[in-house]
Amino acid sequence: MKNKIENNSHKILSALHKIKIRFDETDAMGIVWHGNYLKYFEDGREAFGRKFGISYQDVMDVNLATPIVKSSVEHFLSLKYGDECVIETTYMFTEAAKLVFNYKIFNTAEKLVCTGETIQVFTEMKNGKMQLTIPQFYKDWKKKNVLKNA
Amino acid sequence: MKNKIENNSHKILSALHKIKIRFDETDAMGIVWHGNYLKYFEDGREAFGRKFGISYQDVMDVNLATPIVKSSVEHFLSLKYGDECVIETTYMFTEAAKLVFNYKIFNTAEKLVCTGETIQVFTEMKNGKMQLTIPQFYKDWKKKNVLKNA
Amino acid sequence: MKNKIENNSHKILSALHKIKIRFDETDAMGIVWHGNYLKYFEDGREAFGRKFGISYQDVMDVNLATPIVKSSVEHFLSLKYGDECVIETTYMFTEAAKLVFNYKIFNTAEKLVCTGETIQVFTEMKNGKMQLTIPQFYKDWKKKNVLKNA
Amino acid sequence: MKNKIENNSHKILSALHKIKIRFDETDAMGIVWHGNYLKYFEDGREAFGRKFGISYQDVMDVNLATPIVKSSVEHFLSLKYGDECVIETTYMFTEAAKLVFNYKIFNTAEKLVCTGETIQVFTEMKNGKMQLTIPQFYKDWKKKNVLKNA
Repeated sequence: MKNKIENNSHKILSALHKIKIRFDETDAMGIVWHGNYLKYFEDGREAFGRKFGISYQDVMDVNLATPIVKSSVEHFLSLKYGDECVIETTYMFTEAAKLVFNYKIFNTAEKLVCTGETIQVFTEMKNGKMQLTIPQFYKDWKKKNVLKNA
Repeated sequence: MKNKIENNSHKILSALHKIKIRFDETDAMGIVWHGNYLKYFEDGREAFGRKFGISYQDVMDVNLATPIVKSSVEHFLSLKYGDECVIETTYMFTEAAKLVFNYKIFNTAEKLVCTGETIQVFTEMKNGKMQLTIPQFYKDWKKKNVLKNA
Repeated sequence: MKNKIENNSHKILSALHKIKIRFDETDAMGIVWHGNYLKYFEDGREAFGRKFGISYQDVMDVNLATPIVKSSVEHFLSLKYGDECVIETTYMFTEAAKLVFNYKIFNTAEKLVCTGETIQVFTEMKNGKMQLTIPQFYKDWKKKNVLKNA
Repeated sequence: MKNKIENNSHKILSALHKIKIRFDETDAMGIVWHGNYLKYFEDGREAFGRKFGISYQDVMDVNLATPIVKSSVEHFLSLKYGDECVIETTYMFTEAAKLVFNYKIFNTAEKLVCTGETIQVFTEMKNGKMQLTIPQFYKDWKKKNVLKNA
């Protein structure tokens, strides 16, 4: 069916990245302060970029920036100082001039610690103006990495 | 109508709090790093607690903690080092054993910088177990501050 | 005596600034994480600048930056979430092209929490090159604010 | 000579640890915010502990904490987002009930980025009281790892 084919038109790309919790990332409850998970997501995004050949540098080379315009985190378990965990970062397909990533963090027992999402747009470096059209380098990257029948 | 009466059964409580952006809260894009907004929300929540008489101390006195289980931020404008802004923290009514707050941050031009939401649950301090029933002190606080015909 | 006159050739300038400890600034020991004191010193420096008319903006207007090249903190007492404290920032006279500040943080009981020092140099914004001569705006500021018989 | 023998009475212990600079660790100058170097020192200390078998856990097992009472950093070069660097953490011998570490951070060109020192004391977990005598586990560790003719 047409519908199914369309749903299958792009590949699911994910990257795994291992981190260890720093002492300064904990708070007086003895667990990681909730806002620090956005640092871990940033680590995950960077690991994704390394694996699939897309980086801040590519973005900067065309005088763009990719600020976060939306982020969310949902917590199921906590992490403590010294804990190791794995960040799974998944690229979410969209037709828009956006970068959408989903995140899952797992502890060493492979239990789900949290999930999250970030949305980034492309803005002009010099004036911060949002780009409504998709930058060429991102089109090329998508064609090469994400689209199935490109 | 019954429905309307129910909608009006609780008061809308909000607190305003002014902050100034620290240099270390900016990133290499020259603007506040997105994860730091969760610190500002925490400032807002604390200001709310001071204004309406509910605090971490009340929670700790009954051996509970109120970890964040969900948070989200949506960004419309950026903030720079030295910028002043106002955090508007609004208590969102819920029947559940939860604390839900909505946030709006405005810059000095009174433009909306971002919005956000946090959800907290009550957990036992000693074992982290989530409380499904509403703690008495919170029931009392709601009765006194939020419910209209209490 | 000559020596005494020289010692008295400049004024002692200090500024006080009050802050409140944020939850995210604590660590799993339940106290402020030691590295966060450098944020408080930055707050103190900024308050000093406001009081005595010298700011990052003045520095940026002449295309300079003032990176920290040395910092130290000595701790006597700890601070907890919600604690209020006062940062006393004192300008330390030097003939060199440097900005030297000393800090004392006091708790509400007026007990000394910590002391510290930072040293900043002037560097060219565009290439990071250190300036060995004193920038004119800083000479002027010193003459007006610090030197006694100027 | 006696003097020389004494100088040679203990081994020099060092550990190397590699890190990568996170985006949120930079500031609006485009470089790592100076206070973040204390996080890297903490990473170095932890790597030292792993290598030489001394950890926060050992300390906590005897109901002690090891708060930092003094820290200093001297900066020679800056680091940027994505930079990799190596932290060299060296144990500094002392007869006192203290933990003294020296740090050197090197960039990928093996140039010295900064040096630093931290001093920690032993305090009782429950009341924060400083221990003037050396805890047994630390005596044992020193004997096994640091002293030459033990």
